[in-house]
Amino acid sequence: MGGEVMEKHSNLEHTDEDMVKMEVNLDDTTGELLGYLMDLLFETGANDVYYTPIFMKKNRPGILLQLLCSQKNLNKMKQILFTETTTLGIRYYPLTVHRTERSFRKISTKWGSITIKEGIYDGQVIQRSPEYEECKKIAQDHQIPLKKVYEEVWKQLGQSIS
Amino acid sequence: MGGEVMEKHSNLEHTDEDMVKMEVNLDDTTGELLGYLMDLLFETGANDVYYTPIFMKKNRPGILLQLLCSQKNLNKMKQILFTETTTLGIRYYPLTVHRTERSFRKISTKWGSITIKEGIYDGQVIQRSPEYEECKKIAQDHQIPLKKVYEEVWKQLGQSIS
Amino acid sequence: MGGEVMEKHSNLEHTDEDMVKMEVNLDDTTGELLGYLMDLLFETGANDVYYTPIFMKKNRPGILLQLLCSQKNLNKMKQILFTETTTLGIRYYPLTVHRTERSFRKISTKWGSITIKEGIYDGQVIQRSPEYEECKKIAQDHQIPLKKVYEEVWKQLGQSIS
Amino acid sequence: MGGEVMEKHSNLEHTDEDMVKMEVNLDDTTGELLGYLMDLLFETGANDVYYTPIFMKKNRPGILLQLLCSQKNLNKMKQILFTETTTLGIRYYPLTVHRTERSFRKISTKWGSITIKEGIYDGQVIQRSPEYEECKKIAQDHQIPLKKVYEEVWKQLGQSIS
Amino acid sequence: MGGEVMEKHSNLEHTDEDMVKMEVNLDDTTGELLGYLMDLLFETGANDVYYTPIFMKKNRPGILLQLLCSQKNLNKMKQILFTETTTLGIRYYPLTVHRTERSFRKISTKWGSITIKEGIYDGQVIQRSPEYEECKKIAQDHQIPLKKVYEEVWKQLGQSIS
Amino acid sequence: MGGEVMEKHSNLEHTDEDMVKMEVNLDDTTGELLGYLMDLLFETGANDVYYTPIFMKKNRPGILLQLLCSQKNLNKMKQILFTETTTLGIRYYPLTVHRTERSFRKISTKWGSITIKEGIYDGQVIQRSPEYEECKKIAQDHQIPLKKVYEEVWKQLGQSIS
Repeated sequence: MGGEVMEKHSNLEHTDEDMVKMEVNLDDTTGELLGYLMDLLFETGANDVYYTPIFMKKNRPGILLQLLCSQKNLNKMKQILFTETTTLGIRYYPLTVHRTERSFRKISTKWGSITIKEGIYDGQVIQRSPEYEECKKIAQDHQIPLKKVYEEVWKQLGQSIS
Repeated sequence: MGGEVMEKHSNLEHTDEDMVKMEVNLDDTTGELLGYLMDLLFETGANDVYYTPIFMKKNRPGILLQLLCSQKNLNKMKQILFTETTTLGIRYYPLTVHRTERSFRKISTKWGSITIKEGIYDGQVIQRSPEYEECKKIAQDHQIPLKKVYEEVWKQLGQSIS
Repeated sequence: MGGEVMEKHSNLEHTDEDMVKMEVNLDDTTGELLGYLMDLLFETGANDVYYTPIFMKKNRPGILLQLLCSQKNLNKMKQILFTETTTLGIRYYPLTVHRTERSFRKISTKWGSITIKEGIYDGQVIQRSPEYEECKKIAQDHQIPLKKVYEEVWKQLGQSIS
Repeated sequence: MGGEVMEKHSNLEHTDEDMVKMEVNLDDTTGELLGYLMDLLFETGANDVYYTPIFMKKNRPGILLQLLCSQKNLNKMKQILFTETTTLGIRYYPLTVHRTERSFRKISTKWGSITIKEGIYDGQVIQRSPEYEECKKIAQDHQIPLKKVYEEVWKQLGQSIS
Repeated sequence: MGGEVMEKHSNLEHTDEDMVKMEVNLDDTTGELLGYLMDLLFETGANDVYYTPIFMKKNRPGILLQLLCSQKNLNKMKQILFTETTTLGIRYYPLTVHRTERSFRKISTKWGSITIKEGIYDGQVIQRSPEYEECKKIAQDHQIPLKKVYEEVWKQLGQSIS
Repeated sequence: MGGEVMEKHSNLEHTDEDMVKMEVNLDDTTGELLGYLMDLLFETGANDVYYTPIFMKKNRPGILLQLLCSQKNLNKMKQILFTETTTLGIRYYPLTVHRTERSFRKISTKWGSITIKEGIYDGQVIQRSPEYEECKKIAQDHQIPLKKVYEEVWKQLGQSIS
């Protein structure tokens, strides 16, 4: 799940019963403002925010804003949604989130080291992905396609497993 | 939130625990019928209805119909969904809706008066928007761009605040 | 194709070389205004208008407006697009449209007669569809599901072919 | 609802309180892999799976995977989602599903018999649809448009009701 | 570009001036039928076919069908589109396609060999991807995640470059 | 149109016959990479870039990348598209762009001055919009909703017209 702000102690596999999903339908907030809003919500503690195009009444293309946060951040999120968007109603409901254990390690490439995030589920590494921002910086600094950086990562990861 | 049919006494800020969201996936109901259905659901008491394009099995583009209503309207909505669409299953779950206080006032423009809906959250006016149908009528009657009508509204609203 | 305003003489199968497609990307026009705009464009002579959700720069959900019209209506459409939306640029290119012959006939149902539009391609009837507005009126007047009206139409059409 | 694997005894109208919806946001799983995954989830017991395009942070087009299954299949689904996709978190919440009674009968057409699935709600047949795979096979075997097969079905169904 | 049926001699880098894009807007063809149609168009010689969700008049969610084919297949495609869908008009326009050189080679993995398609642009290998159907078969035969098969491919590819 | 890099002399109303639209269908490029790619294309001279969700063969959710540039930048864009994405084919066609005259002026608000971009069509100001980046900076520096900054702009603009 994108945009997750994880606290240290929550890096072990666990099931989080404390989360809530918020939803707002918007038919008179501009795309310009929505781009701004997403960053603001992440900075204020949203675990995830995403937009879905929807068809609303009176032939209006609209946007469904969905947001994941912990119960304790609910009011902070409401405050932003009411003051930044045009909505007069916010809906929400609780949900459960199962998170894998996460650990981090470094691999070295010809362009420097890159952090790998590993997801561990039921004791098995089921997911390994390089940190996007580090790959991006390498691509920009060395003027090479980002795709090449990822290819190098897969190659190194392959050799390190056996 | 679009399409809301508000009752008088619910114009004060409140949290509604009585709402339910219904969902239906459709891969063999035509767009033509869905346009008709949306109006029908609003007329019968849905608080909101919206469609999301989804990718379904066997390479089928489909539509996810979502509907918000109060518990007491659940059966009326089921009746319409089962008889008008092609679905054989309807899913639903409860949710909470936080609604701002709403009040209405008039501003006057060179083309006549326009109703402004205000949203009041925690004692503060956080949202003011002109009634769409009135703005539309002015644009049509005076053969001017709807954008111009809104611009005039923002100008009047600006002067009235400070 | 939706929204087509056909002139009498163009009811025979033909290939129209006189059409143009116009496109505008919008990230700061509201859904509310876009619902209004679509009707206005159809009334002013657009052959078709439709909206596609797009992902624009700076994380902005936007809308791609596409419009089909004949060359002779190009300037009328530009006028509306520039004055009603927020765009500062309109792009367009010519295209060819192959249209089937269209003819109309009536069938009778227990609720009254309904017009059937037939599409004839290469001398064969390849498409028959009832007029939506007439079916809708019957459904409303008789308080029956629109789906039922269409089912009755298919039944009548079936018997009339062989 | 697409993809439903119904057990025999559940063919009567009933309300299922045992269902759960799972959700995963994906911004680094390819479309190629998602096409594969959908089939796998259906084969392993998902009642429905569908994808919605979403706008995620950092200008990323993503996909929201939604999945419906019974509580007893929750762990099997988690296992697949964690090992096949790139997610490190899966969210879920319970919901209720109201299902109509379902019965099956045959109609005969000039190309052979076709199974009709009927949905019965509150004692009334509210939905009749031919089995897609059978119609498809007829269209392919007889080299005729699938649309024609459906038209024949509507005609036969019309006569059988009166 | 998906679904491309390449002829032998066109495996060298070249610019194809012979292609045409066709478009149809559909608001009364079901998703079920559209899933069927896509396969049929590919089998009959379309180079690519894809669907985009669009917002059409009268609040109708619709689908824009787009199809790429060579000029010589234009009439075959028209024939299918008119007989299988509900449209009465098809639009099209020419375009240019720049294609990279394509070559194929095998790599060996612990589960057997896999074909790699290489794209060569301006004399450089710019793209290498394993054949999806072969990877899928391996995943199914060995009951392993498809993601694992791809990871193995990246590892082998990495070692084979330098 | 978003993302337009305008040169000085092109600020007068004009019709540009030198533009081309490029298109690529992608089913195995990740959202992560697409977010990166959009910025890169803008920096390298694309006039506009946007993504549309599409339904591709084999049940794959994909992305249609569309890009607007002038003929002289065509090869630079091809180079990036081939090296950064997974495509082996790029299609393109010429189109015309009608651009309004653009002029810039300042208004002053309680938080400092803001640049207003004006669009002038046929001698009339048809569009006025504040520079997003300046409004965003004010909202962040003063910790106020971006919506408030826009409201202040509309108020000032209203008074300055008469």
